[in-house]
Amino acid sequence: MKRILSALIVSLLFVGTAWARPAKVGAEDAIRAVLGAQVETWNRGDVDSFMQSYWRSEKTEFVGSNGIFRGWQAVLKRYRKTYPDRRSMGTLTFSNLEITMLSSTAALVVGQYQLEREADHPGGVFTLVFRKFPEGWRIINDHTSVVVKR
Amino acid sequence: MKRILSALIVSLLFVGTAWARPAKVGAEDAIRAVLGAQVETWNRGDVDSFMQSYWRSEKTEFVGSNGIFRGWQAVLKRYRKTYPDRRSMGTLTFSNLEITMLSSTAALVVGQYQLEREADHPGGVFTLVFRKFPEGWRIINDHTSVVVKR
Repeated sequence: MKRILSALIVSLLFVGTAWARPAKVGAEDAIRAVLGAQVETWNRGDVDSFMQSYWRSEKTEFVGSNGIFRGWQAVLKRYRKTYPDRRSMGTLTFSNLEITMLSSTAALVVGQYQLEREADHPGGVFTLVFRKFPEGWRIINDHTSVVVKR
Repeated sequence: MKRILSALIVSLLFVGTAWARPAKVGAEDAIRAVLGAQVETWNRGDVDSFMQSYWRSEKTEFVGSNGIFRGWQAVLKRYRKTYPDRRSMGTLTFSNLEITMLSSTAALVVGQYQLEREADHPGGVFTLVFRKFPEGWRIINDHTSVVVKR
């Protein structure tokens, strides 16, 4: 019982530390944590939690070959339409992440994504602009392009 | 003679003011001027001058459906390959420009572009990240997507 209690306390401390985001955790680490949470939430099919990485604002934008989707709700709607079920979401990985700090409260992230699905393996590139808000680092602009392998 | 001299002095003062970019000219105006110069240089087929809008650095990136092009030279090479002659360059216009200041030295620009060419009229969307350097505002990251009209 004592061992279970210790494990529980350690787990709670860990979760607490991760969510409190103390000042000493660098901005890059905080941004990497948001990207890590994106992958983790996507891969358990939890689009609502995945969407927490986007700034909850009417100004948030998703840009791509279908044009510009403006507003957090429009971005959510696009994800739900493009990935209607667990199978279409597949398994997401990010690679070659480059983080460029633009100020103490803004950053540019360039990276590559890959989806492993039963039927296909689409992938591509993205540029994300992050800003730091009281609630943490959030994506204010996501421009994603599918890259067709030739 | 006196009148011509006055006109000349006024003209020189105007040009001087425009090029010196005094502090009172807002960052947004300076960024719009770079975008204006992009359109103007493109439409006279002057790719070298067009490329002045990009930060002359190995870190400058162009992102799109062909992946990531890293470095000013690679971006230039891509433009030369994609638009080998005046006819392929067509006539460029930008529209719906949105400038978001991220700090006093960084900005995000989202907009739409259109090329009028004899054979076709391709267009799409772009997100540009600008930074302010001693030489002025320059693009450090350009992510452009063709949007196919359906």
